[in-house]
Amino acid sequence: MRFQQKLSAIQKKNNSLVCVGLDQGEFEFDKKIIEKTHDLVCAYKPNFSFYEARGETGWRDLKLTAEYLRKNYPEVVTIADAKRADIGNSNQGYVKAIFDELKFDAVTVHPYLGREAVLPFLERADKGIFVLCRTSNPGAGEFQDLKVGSAAGSGQKPLWQAVTEGVRDDWNENGNVMLVAGATYPEELKKIREVVGEMTLLVPGVGAQGGDVAKTVKAGVNSRGAGMIVNSSRGIIFADDPRTAAEKLRDEINSFR
Amino acid sequence: MRFQQKLSAIQKKNNSLVCVGLDQGEFEFDKKIIEKTHDLVCAYKPNFSFYEARGETGWRDLKLTAEYLRKNYPEVVTIADAKRADIGNSNQGYVKAIFDELKFDAVTVHPYLGREAVLPFLERADKGIFVLCRTSNPGAGEFQDLKVGSAAGSGQKPLWQAVTEGVRDDWNENGNVMLVAGATYPEELKKIREVVGEMTLLVPGVGAQGGDVAKTVKAGVNSRGAGMIVNSSRGIIFADDPRTAAEKLRDEINSFR
Repeated sequence: MRFQQKLSAIQKKNNSLVCVGLDQGEFEFDKKIIEKTHDLVCAYKPNFSFYEARGETGWRDLKLTAEYLRKNYPEVVTIADAKRADIGNSNQGYVKAIFDELKFDAVTVHPYLGREAVLPFLERADKGIFVLCRTSNPGAGEFQDLKVGSAAGSGQKPLWQAVTEGVRDDWNENGNVMLVAGATYPEELKKIREVVGEMTLLVPGVGAQGGDVAKTVKAGVNSRGAGMIVNSSRGIIFADDPRTAAEKLRDEINSFR
Repeated sequence: MRFQQKLSAIQKKNNSLVCVGLDQGEFEFDKKIIEKTHDLVCAYKPNFSFYEARGETGWRDLKLTAEYLRKNYPEVVTIADAKRADIGNSNQGYVKAIFDELKFDAVTVHPYLGREAVLPFLERADKGIFVLCRTSNPGAGEFQDLKVGSAAGSGQKPLWQAVTEGVRDDWNENGNVMLVAGATYPEELKKIREVVGEMTLLVPGVGAQGGDVAKTVKAGVNSRGAGMIVNSSRGIIFADDPRTAAEKLRDEINSFR
């Protein structure tokens, strides 16, 4: 099944746009979070950094988490938050690890090297590729806000918008490419939504990072009140009661769709 | 010892700017290449993608290669070609894995998220941080060549130059930040050299990717005929005789310094 179909099905079934960011890097921890939240979310997004911190043991845990999800909750989407991008065939190892060995449904990638560099990801038509566009960190604007034009002319729009338009027009031949746009920048999120039409956006930054749920949802949903995956990591996994936190976020998001 | 000191010492001792890219992802293979070339090079650069392709086994091999180098050839620089960058503290896992567990001397990172995002790397003053600036792939220009200005004004210079200047002016408080500039774009390499003064550049793309050694060295060396790490991967590791290939590249580079 293609990524978009799987995502739409689980978003409908669980009536949820919530993605839980697995930012602890331990299978036993992940398992508890998953057991408490799987019917309230559309996706889980392990951030590879936390697993790699523990080397080969961490990789084993990452694989256990991916397998556990696939075996027990195969309808729920899995996003490898690996933020990779190498050039050309040097990506093949990442592609193999993430899609063939760990069997994730989707991955996050950096745009800086261009479409031609990350073709080995884009060519996996059954998988979802989320391109970092407007990130949620305070200093995101250093390069992303630079005004740019074509290679020939002077600039009129921010770099993040050029990435948005480039991905929309040139990267998405297989209909599997989407964007990452931080909830901490609702105005940019709104503009990205205008530029991409119905495309799905992965939106981190609500909760601990300070993104406002109402503003985020109003800015980010597409014409069908969907087209978003709203990620919360620390706000759910480190909550006293992760289930209640996930449910609260799901319901809050739904109230603004 | 700080990265730059270690690099200068080994470049002098082995009279070499050559870095061998370890793009096979197997310790036993790496060991053979290292045994044949260690006195002809200044650095080894394992590309993480090839190791990750084999999951936890690959990570074990990566660790074995890093340990083997550290134990047997501690003077030779090791560069983790991991092309990472997450936001803020989410980088800590990568930092820990690459610098504390695997004990690499340096790492490659993406610039798109800005300085503030990758501070956990930059703050490691003893380590080398290579920021992707002008990459060697054919499609590198898609975003890197866009003309940019300040966040306020229209653009006059390519994005790669804005990255070059930003890194020079704002990222390098600890004197440990350097740039990646592909040998396949000698004109851009020359301009980057002009902008950064004496800063060390990591230059991939000679050999299999088509970069011309004479043009690369003339464009890339600093005022002391150094300031470069010239990487070759396939051209050395898959040569019939890797030692001869490394020696030939070293001597060819030196003839143009």
